[in-house]
Order: sequence, then C-alpha cells, then structure tokens
Amino acid sequence: MATLFKDVYIQDGSRAKAERVHLLVSKGRIEQIIDASQTPPAADKIVSGRGHMAVIPGFVNAHTHAAMALLRGLGEETALMEWLQTRIWPVEDKLTPDYIYWGTLSAMLEMLASGTTCFADMYFEMERVAEAVLGAGMKAALCRGITAGEPGKIERSLQNNLDLAKNYHGREGLITVQLGPHAPYTVPMNYMKLITDSAKTHGLGVHFHFLETQGELGNLGMSAEDYLNESGLLNTPYTVLAHAVYLDPAITLPDSVSLVHNPCSNLKLGSGVMPLTEWLDKGANVALGTDGASSNNRLDMWEEMRTAALLHKGVKRDPVIVSALDVLRMATYEGARAFGFSQKGMIREGWFADLVLVNLDRPHYIGVNEENLAMYLVYAGSSADVAGTMINGRWIYRNGEYPTLDAEEIVSKAREARKAIIN
Amino acid sequence: MATLFKDVYIQDGSRAKAERVHLLVSKGRIEQIIDASQTPPAADKIVSGRGHMAVIPGFVNAHTHAAMALLRGLGEETALMEWLQTRIWPVEDKLTPDYIYWGTLSAMLEMLASGTTCFADMYFEMERVAEAVLGAGMKAALCRGITAGEPGKIERSLQNNLDLAKNYHGREGLITVQLGPHAPYTVPMNYMKLITDSAKTHGLGVHFHFLETQGELGNLGMSAEDYLNESGLLNTPYTVLAHAVYLDPAITLPDSVSLVHNPCSNLKLGSGVMPLTEWLDKGANVALGTDGASSNNRLDMWEEMRTAALLHKGVKRDPVIVSALDVLRMATYEGARAFGFSQKGMIREGWFADLVLVNLDRPHYIGVNEENLAMYLVYAGSSADVAGTMINGRWIYRNGEYPTLDAEEIVSKAREARKAIIN
Repeated sequence: MATLFKDVYIQDGSRAKAERVHLLVSKGRIEQIIDASQTPPAADKIVSGRGHMAVIPGFVNAHTHAAMALLRGLGEETALMEWLQTRIWPVEDKLTPDYIYWGTLSAMLEMLASGTTCFADMYFEMERVAEAVLGAGMKAALCRGITAGEPGKIERSLQNNLDLAKNYHGREGLITVQLGPHAPYTVPMNYMKLITDSAKTHGLGVHFHFLETQGELGNLGMSAEDYLNESGLLNTPYTVLAHAVYLDPAITLPDSVSLVHNPCSNLKLGSGVMPLTEWLDKGANVALGTDGASSNNRLDMWEEMRTAALLHKGVKRDPVIVSALDVLRMATYEGARAFGFSQKGMIREGWFADLVLVNLDRPHYIGVNEENLAMYLVYAGSSADVAGTMINGRWIYRNGEYPTLDAEEIVSKAREARKAIIN
Repeated sequence: MATLFKDVYIQDGSRAKAERVHLLVSKGRIEQIIDASQTPPAADKIVSGRGHMAVIPGFVNAHTHAAMALLRGLGEETALMEWLQTRIWPVEDKLTPDYIYWGTLSAMLEMLASGTTCFADMYFEMERVAEAVLGAGMKAALCRGITAGEPGKIERSLQNNLDLAKNYHGREGLITVQLGPHAPYTVPMNYMKLITDSAKTHGLGVHFHFLETQGELGNLGMSAEDYLNESGLLNTPYTVLAHAVYLDPAITLPDSVSLVHNPCSNLKLGSGVMPLTEWLDKGANVALGTDGASSNNRLDMWEEMRTAALLHKGVKRDPVIVSALDVLRMATYEGARAFGFSQKGMIREGWFADLVLVNLDRPHYIGVNEENLAMYLVYAGSSADVAGTMINGRWIYRNGEYPTLDAEEIVSKAREARKAIIN
C-alpha cells in the first residue's frame, strides 16, 4: 500500500532549507520525492498538505528508561544519588515483568504522540519491553541495565543481555540490542572489561551512563580518558555514552563513540550543563534523549530540542550557537546512527518511512516558509503540532488514535501497576 | 448562568496540596468550593471531572509584545542589539494599526489555547490592542512603548499612553493601563523622571525593560540602584521591571516593585540567566512572562514554568531550588498582582473565575494525586493538556474552539499582514 503526502514541506537535519514536494511512501520506505509543482504520483492513500503540513524524520529518543513512566513524580526536587537510593531503587524492586510491560507501553503512547519513532532503552525485563515494541510496530534499541550486586548478579545480567541480543537483535527490522553496563559507579572495572570484550565477541554496541554528575568524575579513580581506554569502551563495535555532562571535550573520541545529551534531565536533577557547543565544534556524534520520565518528566523530543537550542545560547551568552538544524539532526539522524539503525533519520528516497506529520495550520506557524521551517519547528513548535507518526510506512499514531495499540487498556493497566508499586 | 466543575482537583500557587472538590462559578466569580465527597450544588452547566480534571488559575503572561507574533522567525540566532536594530525595528516601521490588531489577535489565539487569561503588553497602536482584548473578553495590562526619537516624539508617546489610560484603564474589568518607558537605552533620564512623575500624578503603574543584557548595566552611567532611585521608578504607584537579568539581588526593592522573569527569551537571545533563586529567597515579587514571540518563539506559559523550574536547578546544580509551586505562583498570582488585578490568580471563593481546565486523563498523568499535582503540572504537563480557558466565568477557549473569536479570519488576516510587512 502506498501513501502519498501531497504538497508538503520536507525538512531534516541535513537540509539548510525545506522543500515543498510530493512524497510517496511505499513498502515501508520513502519511494519518491518530487517537486510540488509536478504532477503527483498515484497512491492508495493521500494526505493533502496544501502547503500547511510538514513531514520530518521521526525522532529517536536516544536515552531513556521507558518503564520509569510508572515512577514519575517520585522524590521530586531531590539530588541524583539520594533520589536513586531512597526513592527510585526501593520502588524498582517492586516492579514485576508485567508492570514493566504496561509501564513501557504507557511511555510509548507518550513518545508516539510526540513524534518519536524509536527509543533507546536501558532497563530490566527487557524481553517484555521487546514484546511491547514489536506489538506496536515501533523501533527501539534495547539493553539490559547491568549493575553489581550479590555474587553472580553481573554475570547473570550479562547473560540475560546476551540472550536478549540473540532473541531480538534485528527482529522485524525494528530492534537493535546493545549491552548495558549501567555506570562506572555500579559496575567495577574488571566487569566493564568483561562486558566490552563480550560486546566485541558478539558484534554488539554498548549503552552506558557516563559522568552525569561531577561527583562521578572524582570517583572514577583515574582520568575520564584513562577510564574510557582501560574499560575497552573505545574498542567496541560502537559505544553510546549517555549524559557526559562532565566529560572534557578536549578528549578526542573515535567515530564509534556517540554521546547523548539529556538537557532537561540534567537540569532537573541539578547535574549541570553538558559542553555541547564544544562537542559540536569538534564534529563529535551527539544525539538527544529525554532520560526516564521520573527525571524529566516528559518523554517529548520537542522539549529536548527546544531546551538544547535555548539553554547553551543563554549559558554561554551567545545567540548564534546550537542552531535549530543542529538539534533537529541530533534528535533524528544522530540517534538512529548511534544505535545502529541505518537509512533512518533523514527524508531521502530509499530511506525508511519513519516520519512525523506536522500541522502548520496553526497561529504560531504564520510566516513559515522554506527558509525558516527548521527554526519554526524548533523554537515555536511543540508536540501538540504532531498530526501523525509513521513507522516503516505504517501509521502508529494518527490524530489522537493509536491504530496498533489499545491505549485505554494500557493507561488502565499502567494505573494499576502504579498503585501496586507505590502503596 | 452558573457552571459547576464537579469532582475536580484544584491547585494554585498558595496550596501545598491539591484538593478534590466541586467548584461552582457564578456571575464571573468562584462562588463556592466544597469537598468532592459532599453533594454538588445545582448549576446550568456541568463539567464532570470524575477525578481526571484539574482547575488551576489562568496564567498571567507578565511581559510580552503580542503583535510581534507577526515578526516571529525574523533574524533568528542573532544577538539582541543587532537583532533589534537590523531585523526587528525596520520591519516594525511597516506595521499599521490594522496589522497590529490582527497580529495581537493571532497571539491571543495562542495564549488562550495554552491557558493564559491575561497578558501584559508593551507595544504601540495600543487602542487597537485594547479593542482586540475587549472583543475577545480577555484581560490585559497595556502600555504604550515609549522611546526617544525625533523632537517631541517622547512627549507625544507619553500623551498617547495617558490617553490610553483615560479611555481604557478599568474598562469592563478587563484592562489595566500602565505607562511604558521602553528601556534605559531608549529613554533619557530626564524623560524617565517626567514619565514616573506622570505615573504618580495619574495613579498609574510603570512597565519597563531593565537590564536584559550585561551591556546595559555598563551603559547606565551609574549603578542600577542609583538609576532606580534617580529615575523615580521606586516611587510610582507600582513598577514592573521586565527581565532584570543583571539586577544584583543584593538590592532591596520596595513592595511596589515587581520583576518579570522571561527565561526562554533570555536564553534564546543569549542574554543570560536571571538570579531567580536569590530574589525568591528575599521574598521579592517575581512574575513570569514569555516576552514577544520573535524572541521565544512561543507564547506558552507552560514552557516558561517548566524552563524556570528546570533551568536554575541545572545552572546552580541544586535540584531543590525553584519549586513547582514557586513557578505556578509566579505564572498566575504574581503576574496579576504586579499589574493591578486583584482577586485573580488563586482558586478562592469570591475571586474572579479566570480558570484553566486541565485534562489529567492522559498517560503522563498516571500517578497524579493531591500531593503531587503541582509537580505533575509543571514538570510533566504542557499546553496540550488544556481543555478550556475561562475568563470571568465565560469560556474563551474550549476544546480547540474560541467562542468569542473568529479564529479562521484572524489567522488569514495575520498571514496577509505578515506578507505585507516582510515582502
């Protein structure tokens, strides 16, 4: 079945200017893009843009813990370590596989409604997360969060993560699997080496929390550069470092390493402000993520784009840094690339039809045109403008409805889960 | 006509906890609030909350230039002075009274849809702004932006501002008028004195841009404290200082003076970060505003609340400062109080029924309760949750519709105006 987007603007992180085109989607991919002045191709379904719709790449939320949607609002206005140790971890102990399934699905409702087509998730009971993702037809990069504990715990978690990879990596073209050592302060160095060796052996990427807070830097026991070298993180097939608020951008990272900027979570937990402009100036790979819903508290990539674009300008007192195009690319292509999804995150013929349909027929888009669309989207736009979210050419969200999901049941089950773990 | 909000949460900036109540609106005011366990009073119209709706005070956008919605997206990613001088002022010269009327109305559509019931506007052709406000049934604090220019310009602008006060101050209980000297760098000191004297004579407040950028502080020619004293700004009936990014909080301000924090605009223009926590610690009056749509680029108080609540935590690396309750109070009561609106900005019997109806039946509100509602609203909520905006007991926005405005005509006329001034 083919879908034609007739007379729409297209914009992505690689285009200095938007174009007004007809865009044909077929067999899950962007089949054809032609100028809007030409005769549109035939299609079964037609979405008529009339110059008041835009099609942009689906967002890739490059760092989250989806099921933590169930823990939203717990321990608000508390410092990271206290928050983790006294408010989050005790409640996480009560999470069952079922709760994680429904919590993840409720997070997916939020993400899909805001245009996210793929999310990078680090949590546990990840088989249930994989089933939630496959059932919806969404894309995800999944890893088992591996932390030390009682003897044998890390080994079991690693085996569990490898089993996840064996069973789900590449499934239906929707899932990639990484290994997920949690953080330097939860995984001892000898195990970090074991995990990165395992990643090399199995051809898997690694997803890791690194230097979210200043305290972590002092507790590494060595420089960040030595840590990255000694742990083997620079020699995996690919490594994604979430947060990196206190990673000195003087370090040169290999192209196999990507960073994930989580501006809202870093602000909310009082962690600080990542040196984004320095990394962008160096041409580093930087993606964008929300982090979990309990430290943000939204799962909305429009918020991350806007915050990333505004925050650094203000803190550095320089209104020309971190452009709208920078954050749009970070929120789409860079996230896909970081987690091993190819031909995703740009509007190009032959690439996957993972798309967001944006309604520009609203007062805050008055004056939008080819030259300024990216800036309108980032600075004036919001998730309320999302008219639809398409993954592999299939609508997964459209005008408030979720064709592949029972939203009512999900919210009801997630509410039950929340009650069970809090009370 | 009476409207009953049946079984809804109420929350405002003065309540540590939300309450679940029946709330009756009659004759433009909140007539009765009783516990939800009691029998609800009779009413012509019933809004049934069933525990999945919240009623909060309407937002007061305490500093904006509404008609600048027409200038959105011009000169993006440019420094303040360059932006004003090369991109904004030349285009403003082309604005006609009609354009300002339609531009203001298009800004009002955005504000109403996001729960704003009152805005403080500094611009020109303010009679047309007043007519737009009265026609819609919205509330506004209006002043004529007064700047130096050719001989006699300031005197004429001041007279125009005084005429505005004479004709519109107090009209239908919807409008207050202030005098609007633009800024220290556009109004010489001798005229500042003339204007503050005039404010005293006529019993009017003053709305003024003060120390938005660091450069302005150096150019005052004296200390900020001396400037405030010498200009007479501390001795008006009331004075509202917008921005105050570089006003040292060591200064003690009289209770007649309020500050307006515009976090998004200050970030976007690279101006910096206001020392909000210090002002709040001192108990200063601080309201919240969006500034104009061309330096934000949204007119959405949810964004300002969220940014204010996150930004300072991150910059100061302290997750317990600037609470959800602080920003909710700033976004509602503090703005109303600053601009001379009494009995507005709290949910109290006898106060004006300027209310926002918030839909909590969405995935990101799973887990919300009396204890955490304010935090859910500020950290997880957004303008997409607004189900209705009521002013003086009358719906001005409800489920995407504007009962008192022709939204289609406004957008169409604003688009025409945009084309005329840009091309």
